[in-house]
Amino acid sequence: MAVNLELPLPNQIFPVPGVSLGIAEAGIKKANRKDLLVIQLAEGAHAAGVFTQNRFCAAPVIVAREHLNSSSVRALVVNTGNANAGTGTSGLQNARETCAQLAKLLKCKPEEILPFSTGVIMEPLPIDRIIKGLPDCVANLREDNWINAANAIMTTDTQPKVYSKRVMISGQTITITGIAKGAGMIHPNMATMLGFVATDAAVAPALLNELVSYAANRSFNKVSIDGDTSTNDSFILIASGKNKLAEIKNNQSAEFIQLRDAVTDICMLLAQAIVRDGEGATKFITVKIDKGMNENECDKVGFAIAHSPLIKTAFFASDPNLGRIVCAIGYAGINDLDVNKVDLYLDNVLVVKNGGRAASYLESEGQRVMKQKEILVNVVLNRGTASSTVWTCDFSHDYVSINADYRS
Amino acid sequence: MAVNLELPLPNQIFPVPGVSLGIAEAGIKKANRKDLLVIQLAEGAHAAGVFTQNRFCAAPVIVAREHLNSSSVRALVVNTGNANAGTGTSGLQNARETCAQLAKLLKCKPEEILPFSTGVIMEPLPIDRIIKGLPDCVANLREDNWINAANAIMTTDTQPKVYSKRVMISGQTITITGIAKGAGMIHPNMATMLGFVATDAAVAPALLNELVSYAANRSFNKVSIDGDTSTNDSFILIASGKNKLAEIKNNQSAEFIQLRDAVTDICMLLAQAIVRDGEGATKFITVKIDKGMNENECDKVGFAIAHSPLIKTAFFASDPNLGRIVCAIGYAGINDLDVNKVDLYLDNVLVVKNGGRAASYLESEGQRVMKQKEILVNVVLNRGTASSTVWTCDFSHDYVSINADYRS
Repeated sequence: MAVNLELPLPNQIFPVPGVSLGIAEAGIKKANRKDLLVIQLAEGAHAAGVFTQNRFCAAPVIVAREHLNSSSVRALVVNTGNANAGTGTSGLQNARETCAQLAKLLKCKPEEILPFSTGVIMEPLPIDRIIKGLPDCVANLREDNWINAANAIMTTDTQPKVYSKRVMISGQTITITGIAKGAGMIHPNMATMLGFVATDAAVAPALLNELVSYAANRSFNKVSIDGDTSTNDSFILIASGKNKLAEIKNNQSAEFIQLRDAVTDICMLLAQAIVRDGEGATKFITVKIDKGMNENECDKVGFAIAHSPLIKTAFFASDPNLGRIVCAIGYAGINDLDVNKVDLYLDNVLVVKNGGRAASYLESEGQRVMKQKEILVNVVLNRGTASSTVWTCDFSHDYVSINADYRS
Repeated sequence: MAVNLELPLPNQIFPVPGVSLGIAEAGIKKANRKDLLVIQLAEGAHAAGVFTQNRFCAAPVIVAREHLNSSSVRALVVNTGNANAGTGTSGLQNARETCAQLAKLLKCKPEEILPFSTGVIMEPLPIDRIIKGLPDCVANLREDNWINAANAIMTTDTQPKVYSKRVMISGQTITITGIAKGAGMIHPNMATMLGFVATDAAVAPALLNELVSYAANRSFNKVSIDGDTSTNDSFILIASGKNKLAEIKNNQSAEFIQLRDAVTDICMLLAQAIVRDGEGATKFITVKIDKGMNENECDKVGFAIAHSPLIKTAFFASDPNLGRIVCAIGYAGINDLDVNKVDLYLDNVLVVKNGGRAASYLESEGQRVMKQKEILVNVVLNRGTASSTVWTCDFSHDYVSINADYRS
């Protein structure tokens, strides 16, 4: 059960002009569920993406990267139920064949299609079922189909993830809408995380590339569920250009900054939703590291805390076993860390002062905070001015059950 | 319940001349259990050690390092139930006071004592109880007390860990006996791992330092239970010099190599015992990486596999979800890895050939191996001649339960 994950109402999810979505039941892994999605972009749209750093990246990731670098983009195709990863040359052929078949239906070139897959690794992609499902997706293409699309890309997610907002930029109403799926293997760079966010603004390709990295580094790359970086992670940002606002070309302009911040907001909501719906999660934990020398060392400390199974089981148990947090700070990899300067807060409760248990700390106060469903862990390194925030969840019996049973 | 962890019989544990051990009930955390240990060394003995790399290292680690660098060693004192870590200056004072009190009893200098603690982090050490317990330890000092000592240093261990062997070196019978404790927070460099190994051979101090690192790098630094590197890890090697064999001074000599290999064997048995008794472990997993460019990159792949909660839950479930192993190989951090050369075996079953599912692989074969209590994961990188082996265990419901309830 997800932690405080409230779905927006259907009337809060706005269509993005120039972006249509169509879903279908292809029967890839299970019968009677939508498992195939096509997203069609209007002519003249631009897309940019960031992908997993895993060396064993999936076949669709290889093909999507290749197509994104060589061509304009007219459509995305996403299947759930099978990751098409660790599938060798036949996996690559299947990813290319999926693009070729969709290109025929949409009357565009195969290299204008980006393929995505999520699900079980190392099983052959049932390409015939996917090909059979594509015409249904195309027949279903509609601009107001985001919620259905969010449902169709789920794997072990318990809830769809979809957010939308409208912002006024230079007198024009710009829409940003996005969907994502988790839920295990969540770790920066990135997760079995798929994210697709679209806006109707027109953005020059170079700026769209800058924007996709900026937003990913403040959202999808700041969440961790179990430290596993998946083979299939992909985040694609689409700018359809259907809005009347003139194309944004300057990364110093007010228009760019407004759009950038709005896109980042949607990505952050989606990334946090993935954590809230993390496998077996019962708590949502924000780890904020302050006064580090640079963001990178703050990230190291944040992720050391966010990854520790010992800390995550203590959160699950509502046990203020805060020594485990101190321990993780110590092994995070800051070699010249002076632990005698480190302070630690749990919400507003001072737990550690100058590297030792704070004189004012009462276990009852720690216990009170640990029982909450939303907890802030704030580490103050007192050696600089940089900060970083990462989000994670606790580690429960259900995590073990879900992952022990996933394939069966 | 530990995995295939057979205790040696009492008559298989040999006293080490010149090394006496005494235990007592100090009531540090729980009543009615032995929780304090003193190990006394004969005059002229040498000791060498390796310690946690955690920046938040415990007070006793700071003091033990300091004393080891400045003085000869006459005794070790070990308490369980409290880690004396994250305890600031009062923690340091308590560690020093423990040494001072024991020095009075043993009529030696405080800096000739090395202190060790294990247990809960960030709670004040109950120094009065420890001081009260020390005379009982001293009264109990005996050379045939290794098994009792192994029991006294346990925390969440379900079984004591003690091994012993005798080897003939240049016509003399040399004894090596050691104890260790785990069981959570096990990760190289090192774990809440305490290990104490002694021999009656005489070894020059420089060689003993070389030997302690050599043995640790092939044993305690090759095991992982949950990836948490503790504040208190320490491994101490003692050479009492009470044997008639002449002092070993040359690291190329046959005597040194025989002793080195025997000490390493004992350390490996102790390290593997820690994994077999890992918190909640139901399976013992050996991860062997072959044909890497160097040992370091083999270690990276081995530990990526050994740390992955997704892989460890699949082992728990006996689910041959081998894509998760492929995924971990991919994110282990070898940036120029050619995944198309990678092979993967589960015991003798070829699972992945040239980066893809092997044509010969039958899921029933994978399933058969996954049901075993002892499993070999063998990754062949096919890019060099280096190898590395690490040991780990699976991740069960009991791991969550044990760590959710540890303090209560």
